[in-house]
Amino acid sequence: MTTAMVEKYKAFHRLLNKTSRTLVDRRFRQQGQCARGGSAASGLDHRPDAVVEQRVSYLGCPKRGLWTSARASLPSLVDGGFARDYPMNRCRSFGSVAGEIQRSSKFATLNSDDVAHFKEILGERNVVQDERLEAANSDWMHKYVGSSRILLLPKSTDEVSRILKYCNSRCLAVVPQGGNTGLVGGSVPVFDEVIINMALMKQVISFDKISGILVCEAGCILEDLISFLDNQGFVMPLDLGAKGSCQIGGNVATNAGGLRLIRYGSLHGNVLGLEVVLANGDVLDMLGTLRKDNTGYDLKHLFIGSEGSLGIITKVSILTPPKLSSVNIAFLACQDYLSCQKLLLEAKRSLGEILSAFEFMDSVAMDVVLNNLDGVRNPLAPTAHNFYVLIETTGTEESYDKEKLEKFLVGSMESGLISDGVLAQDINQASAFWRLREGVPESLQRAGAVYKYDLSLPVEKMYDLVVEMRARLGESVKVVGYGHLGDGNLHLNISAPKYDDAILAQIEPFVYEWTSNHRGSISAEHGVGLMKANKIFYSKSPEAVQLMASIKKLVDPKTILNPYKVLPHSLMSYS
Amino acid sequence: MTTAMVEKYKAFHRLLNKTSRTLVDRRFRQQGQCARGGSAASGLDHRPDAVVEQRVSYLGCPKRGLWTSARASLPSLVDGGFARDYPMNRCRSFGSVAGEIQRSSKFATLNSDDVAHFKEILGERNVVQDERLEAANSDWMHKYVGSSRILLLPKSTDEVSRILKYCNSRCLAVVPQGGNTGLVGGSVPVFDEVIINMALMKQVISFDKISGILVCEAGCILEDLISFLDNQGFVMPLDLGAKGSCQIGGNVATNAGGLRLIRYGSLHGNVLGLEVVLANGDVLDMLGTLRKDNTGYDLKHLFIGSEGSLGIITKVSILTPPKLSSVNIAFLACQDYLSCQKLLLEAKRSLGEILSAFEFMDSVAMDVVLNNLDGVRNPLAPTAHNFYVLIETTGTEESYDKEKLEKFLVGSMESGLISDGVLAQDINQASAFWRLREGVPESLQRAGAVYKYDLSLPVEKMYDLVVEMRARLGESVKVVGYGHLGDGNLHLNISAPKYDDAILAQIEPFVYEWTSNHRGSISAEHGVGLMKANKIFYSKSPEAVQLMASIKKLVDPKTILNPYKVLPHSLMSYS
Repeated sequence: MTTAMVEKYKAFHRLLNKTSRTLVDRRFRQQGQCARGGSAASGLDHRPDAVVEQRVSYLGCPKRGLWTSARASLPSLVDGGFARDYPMNRCRSFGSVAGEIQRSSKFATLNSDDVAHFKEILGERNVVQDERLEAANSDWMHKYVGSSRILLLPKSTDEVSRILKYCNSRCLAVVPQGGNTGLVGGSVPVFDEVIINMALMKQVISFDKISGILVCEAGCILEDLISFLDNQGFVMPLDLGAKGSCQIGGNVATNAGGLRLIRYGSLHGNVLGLEVVLANGDVLDMLGTLRKDNTGYDLKHLFIGSEGSLGIITKVSILTPPKLSSVNIAFLACQDYLSCQKLLLEAKRSLGEILSAFEFMDSVAMDVVLNNLDGVRNPLAPTAHNFYVLIETTGTEESYDKEKLEKFLVGSMESGLISDGVLAQDINQASAFWRLREGVPESLQRAGAVYKYDLSLPVEKMYDLVVEMRARLGESVKVVGYGHLGDGNLHLNISAPKYDDAILAQIEPFVYEWTSNHRGSISAEHGVGLMKANKIFYSKSPEAVQLMASIKKLVDPKTILNPYKVLPHSLMSYS
Repeated sequence: MTTAMVEKYKAFHRLLNKTSRTLVDRRFRQQGQCARGGSAASGLDHRPDAVVEQRVSYLGCPKRGLWTSARASLPSLVDGGFARDYPMNRCRSFGSVAGEIQRSSKFATLNSDDVAHFKEILGERNVVQDERLEAANSDWMHKYVGSSRILLLPKSTDEVSRILKYCNSRCLAVVPQGGNTGLVGGSVPVFDEVIINMALMKQVISFDKISGILVCEAGCILEDLISFLDNQGFVMPLDLGAKGSCQIGGNVATNAGGLRLIRYGSLHGNVLGLEVVLANGDVLDMLGTLRKDNTGYDLKHLFIGSEGSLGIITKVSILTPPKLSSVNIAFLACQDYLSCQKLLLEAKRSLGEILSAFEFMDSVAMDVVLNNLDGVRNPLAPTAHNFYVLIETTGTEESYDKEKLEKFLVGSMESGLISDGVLAQDINQASAFWRLREGVPESLQRAGAVYKYDLSLPVEKMYDLVVEMRARLGESVKVVGYGHLGDGNLHLNISAPKYDDAILAQIEPFVYEWTSNHRGSISAEHGVGLMKANKIFYSKSPEAVQLMASIKKLVDPKTILNPYKVLPHSLMSYS
């Protein structure tokens, strides 16, 4: 060991001794989130992350609500008019939807006979045509506003089946809706589609404490399932900022990612079975509760991430891991991106089974946070660092996990991968570290206009895009890179004084082409929805998209399910 | 703590002190397997587990081979005739195939023009019509014997594409083949199908040491990939007894399970991308290397477990975890099945992130092993125990993991879940413990005729089937239950002095009906193939099977890919 390394080691060891003696309880995360209440600082990047928010009552559940933006903070996105005031043959949206699209004339228009029929199926009470339609007709950002004239609230699979059978026979277009917390316009009507919201199907059907397998209805709120499992000593393998509103059916339909993906993997690995109602009303029972089942094609995967365009998910079977009690957080600095990558590799190797988060942000992101949020400070020495990394571990044994993390950090300090670092000593400190990472979106929003991209890229190439974009755009804007490094998920944000078409033209389609050229994904976790339906070719081959369209037409020949979304309009027959 | 519990605690603690001081290196497993060579004792249950075997040279790879049964040991299954002696319009198979089926007249018959065309595509050398056809025409058990007249060995995706395009235009039926180590007749011709074996496509294309993502051709031997990754400090999330022969493309096509499933999950979670050639020769590029990608339907899952009936997998991208160095094994006794279940729950909770195997066998299985295998002994006190459990942990820190396991075992002893137990103190002892569990199939085979069933069932119901079967069949046979308890995978074996139709009639269809009534799977990990194509309704709903058939016809309208397999003949047009 060189003298410099010894000094580094000593300095870091002092830091460890100073800060590391108190164990962090898992509960701090939930407490932290509760304390932040409706602020945008969930940092989970699965609900839009750049606005000041407030909770509003929705669908008669006053204790919960959509995360919805305060209108005053988003003057450019918000319009006073709501669904019923808006012509139903036009769609309105902001941002990346490729031009205006026309309502397909092949779809029927709702009439009084239809309403009467729905009331016969669901009862008067669950056929909604009052002011609750407003919330259901728009996403929480008011980025997409539809003009549906009816919201249906089925209470059973049979009711969903009867609704769809009728809609299919009448060629009435339908939009399936869960918590309506999506970001790409997937869960709101484009025009006057019939909204089928699953909020009333919220029963836990069974839970097997031996296997950890939960079976529940699609409308269960994610947070309710988290609480239910917590009481049983288990956890959901999925956690999102929108958990207070989002429904498990919607999570599955959008293949939601979130914070626990690095540890527990995607829903394709955790969902064991689904019950789905197809467009013609047929109930597709794939509700297995088995870890292993090799009898034929595993069809449920078609519906995971299909965003309601192939069927309506009515029940979900999911494998849940046991709850682990020990959580530790470290906030670290790296001099270059290569060190961040190497640190990730070492963390996977040394922390292995206890690693539960590996997040990163660059120095530009840190500056934006420090300059725009109140009550935050950089816990590291005021030396200039180029990158910051947040590492979280979750395990069964507090003392073991802590010691393991400390050993890893000392080793990484010795090898020069990290230049500074601090371990959370209590809940407040841990929360403060997460606040830095989670505060990036909110601070960017406060700093001005933001162009936001959610990309999956090979880890080693990921930051090159930030560097290239910075060179391309020059000094007049701030190019910020942060995200879930452990998952190869980059949030590329460009902060400018105001929105400017010239800047947008410099960014797009360059950002999509660059992502495509590096075999990345233009939507890591947010889905396609309406926003990117015509951009899917940037991430998927023509043959793959063609096969998707063929499957869509096979399963939903009249294309009544969530039309205009997911698939490019050129391949579908909407005109 | 009661006096009895104190005594139990002391007794167990003495046992721990006696046996637990040496750490077990991960390598013992591989060494153990090498030492056992070609014996049937792989215990991975992914190659048939009840025969004495030997390795044979195959496809010019003398160092590797199929696991093939010694003919003398299986007189009832083996016939002297090979493919070329057998009429090509008849199929021959043993066991559960529902009656004889006829070759479909819609498929063309190979002619000299076809052969010339294949030679033009592949070159003379890789169009095989010599004695190597024998091995390719039969599975390693000689349970299924086809009569193909040609074996094609493509070297590239383009060659596969050109072959399939030609076969589709000619309506020549095709059987895709990997290592041909399957158990259900999925990888051998039923009649005279053209065999396309992927053995020459065995290049590693890329490996990303940061993300652990491996991209390789489909013909890579699993063991080669394991070695390659071992040198890089990573492991495959898949391990099978047939690893010396099986190919990764075949593993993916059959959604192979194996030993690491409890820890790393299924291939649906680990495979990140595929390149597949469709029946018409179109290359479907889904070869993503991203952990997150939510752009459209995730089509690769259709091909995982499709057993070559939807396309030929040519390249695979897979997420591999870092190699962990610390492995510990415990062999335990439980008094009842409920205790086994509770122990599983406690193991998941207490060992959490380091648990890597949880296997069980009942006392009948133990008796069969002790009575029929040489050199084995019960390491526990000679008291009668009803159930035995093998627990393996794998982690990063030897001392931590060991201590954690010991603490868990002492706690389980105190609470009465386990009545006796021992920790492996060295490689030999660990190997001996695994030998007991892995030796069940081999010892059953030595004991006489065996009726074997590989079932997935809810863990709490799993052993009820063994009990019911025992009551149903009486004293004249031995009903044995063992398997991967942690995965809910039961191996139900019935040992009788000789094969007897009356016994079979007592077992089937009862066993399938029972499994179906409990929402189990009649094939946990072996697939459907030819053997269970007409039994799929026991595990899948009519609507689901109908959709599978529709997708099959959409993707392969002429049904040239692996005909007669996977899907029930009643839904396909083979006549």
